[in-house]
Amino acid sequence: MPEKAKVTPWEVRGKVDYEKLLNEFGLQPLRFLPKAFQKHVLFRRGIVFAHRDFKQIAEAVEQKKPFVMMTGLMPSGKFHFGHKMVAEQMVFYQQLGAKVYVTVADIEAYNSRNPDLKGLRDVALTEYLTNYVALGLDLKKCDFYFQSARSADGKKANAYYRLANLLARHVTFNEFQAVYGEITPGKMVSSLLQASDMLHPQLPEFDSPLPVVVPVGIDQDPHVRLARDMAQRIKEWKFLPLSSTYHRFMPGLKGDKMSSSDPTSYIALTDTPEEAARKVQKYAFSGGQATIEEHRKKGGNPDIDVAFQMLRYGLEPDDQKLAKIEKDYRAGKLLTGELKQIAIEKLTAFLKEHQKRRKSAEKMVQTFFKKEG
Amino acid sequence: MPEKAKVTPWEVRGKVDYEKLLNEFGLQPLRFLPKAFQKHVLFRRGIVFAHRDFKQIAEAVEQKKPFVMMTGLMPSGKFHFGHKMVAEQMVFYQQLGAKVYVTVADIEAYNSRNPDLKGLRDVALTEYLTNYVALGLDLKKCDFYFQSARSADGKKANAYYRLANLLARHVTFNEFQAVYGEITPGKMVSSLLQASDMLHPQLPEFDSPLPVVVPVGIDQDPHVRLARDMAQRIKEWKFLPLSSTYHRFMPGLKGDKMSSSDPTSYIALTDTPEEAARKVQKYAFSGGQATIEEHRKKGGNPDIDVAFQMLRYGLEPDDQKLAKIEKDYRAGKLLTGELKQIAIEKLTAFLKEHQKRRKSAEKMVQTFFKKEG
Repeated sequence: MPEKAKVTPWEVRGKVDYEKLLNEFGLQPLRFLPKAFQKHVLFRRGIVFAHRDFKQIAEAVEQKKPFVMMTGLMPSGKFHFGHKMVAEQMVFYQQLGAKVYVTVADIEAYNSRNPDLKGLRDVALTEYLTNYVALGLDLKKCDFYFQSARSADGKKANAYYRLANLLARHVTFNEFQAVYGEITPGKMVSSLLQASDMLHPQLPEFDSPLPVVVPVGIDQDPHVRLARDMAQRIKEWKFLPLSSTYHRFMPGLKGDKMSSSDPTSYIALTDTPEEAARKVQKYAFSGGQATIEEHRKKGGNPDIDVAFQMLRYGLEPDDQKLAKIEKDYRAGKLLTGELKQIAIEKLTAFLKEHQKRRKSAEKMVQTFFKKEG
Repeated sequence: MPEKAKVTPWEVRGKVDYEKLLNEFGLQPLRFLPKAFQKHVLFRRGIVFAHRDFKQIAEAVEQKKPFVMMTGLMPSGKFHFGHKMVAEQMVFYQQLGAKVYVTVADIEAYNSRNPDLKGLRDVALTEYLTNYVALGLDLKKCDFYFQSARSADGKKANAYYRLANLLARHVTFNEFQAVYGEITPGKMVSSLLQASDMLHPQLPEFDSPLPVVVPVGIDQDPHVRLARDMAQRIKEWKFLPLSSTYHRFMPGLKGDKMSSSDPTSYIALTDTPEEAARKVQKYAFSGGQATIEEHRKKGGNPDIDVAFQMLRYGLEPDDQKLAKIEKDYRAGKLLTGELKQIAIEKLTAFLKEHQKRRKSAEKMVQTFFKKEG
């Protein structure tokens, strides 16, 4: 019997039925995107597939009006291709004209796992932010901050924390429990800060009255829902409804989840091309058949083949080439070893280029944060 | 059967047995005070009667070393003689050389009772702060702030809220429940901010490494204990143990509690002398006997006589005069009417003088907060 699927912010298990989740959470399928979105594989290929109140963002993009994209990172372990998918959306929205907010959820990390603020800061800068910049993020058009230190400007800092603290009146203990299961003071505080992260760009001290879009994995929707509910209840400010988009999970190398604690489940953007190639060869789950003969006869299944999915999630940006690979693989013309070889070549090219870019990105991050103090 | 006493931060009921509370809470009686403290009736007369770790403050006073006094106010209703007792300690410590921190617990008020931040701000300034200044508080040597807006300096604002948020890791849900009974997200947030209020003067962004004393009513000790416990557990900073002092409750006019919602239970510092006199005549609980004859024979009981207690809590600063009044009242020589008359005369003189001072205090507060923005 297949394992029963479970999708919560804390646990993703079993085979995810996206259609079912869509209905269960009350999300809308993402259709009728502005033309600009066709440029990006994540949108074009339906990897970002659902939304809440995205219309106001689509309109802003079409009418070239300003809007905000907000996202966060929880510094833990290496920056891998799962993180890259979020970073690409950041960069894409920034290039579309969005003001980008990125929070380092260091308070959340401190309260839930790792009480080493200094270490968290280092990882956020040298691992996450450096990769963002190497992937194209423009630091100057980005409000990058730590939950533990919102702003050098007291008015902004006060406004951000004030919102988190006042939101506490507008949520019940039971609502927290429904989202978080067992409640601790640390989790409660993190959840309020997270809501303020999503909502505070709309405060007068920040970018009011711009709409805000938060791109997340579908498992994170309970956080979005909670923030949206609180925003409606608080009367001190009139918030536009939070817009959100939802992406499908990128499979881990072995076909199940990527896990920070298991380096054989992901490819890090700092893996050498040789390491990466070895991981694909050794671990990447194959949708191929047991023998070449059988494969030639029955064909492979690209839907569960991790090498193919890596191409689909972005390593092969050309839709026609991807379609040909898919067709050949299904037909049994393309063997698993050959498919892996294609992925490895793309991966090698990407990592070489990216790691070159990382070098200059490192310097930019250092300079930027020296200036910021 | 007398009502069983109950003393919690949320409820004070029945006859308070201070000796018992002292043992129950683990407080020390306040003895061996530096000479300077003999100047103040609240200390000299044992109204401030217990402490935790007060030695470091006593030493700072004796050696003329800097220290911090921290207290807070919850804006609700009129400023009365109960509030005055706290204000007098503020002013006294400031004159001894302490740097004074005063927080307006507007987040706590918003989350627990009154969701009108603007109104809370007005009451805090026009009612509380104006009376503090009229009672002698020097605004320039005071860090007066709102929980909702810690500082115009982002580094300070970040540091204050960071501490509140990180403390969440170092307290359990059960500990909160033990102090607060039923827990709501709003109460939890308020409690963490309150702990940061007490501890943050010791952060490097503020007045590290100065010791901090918090003068409170004995019912507030659970808050102090919780803040002390969290301070010990958090490893990011090395906090000196929080010092605290505890004062007895000033009785309400009718002999029981002062209550903001019942104006006949207190004298407000903005009551006209005539109103105040009428309240004393009409409501002040008397320790005298039922008839003049009986009073002459058996004598009165100053311990429960509110007019006498008003003199003892400060209206009569001369110990010898107070002792004579006490003696005469106990002996039946002084009648209730006469005792009330003494209190009314003192009260009239105080209110006239204070209300004159309030006028210039009002202007100072206005100017100060215009400057501050």
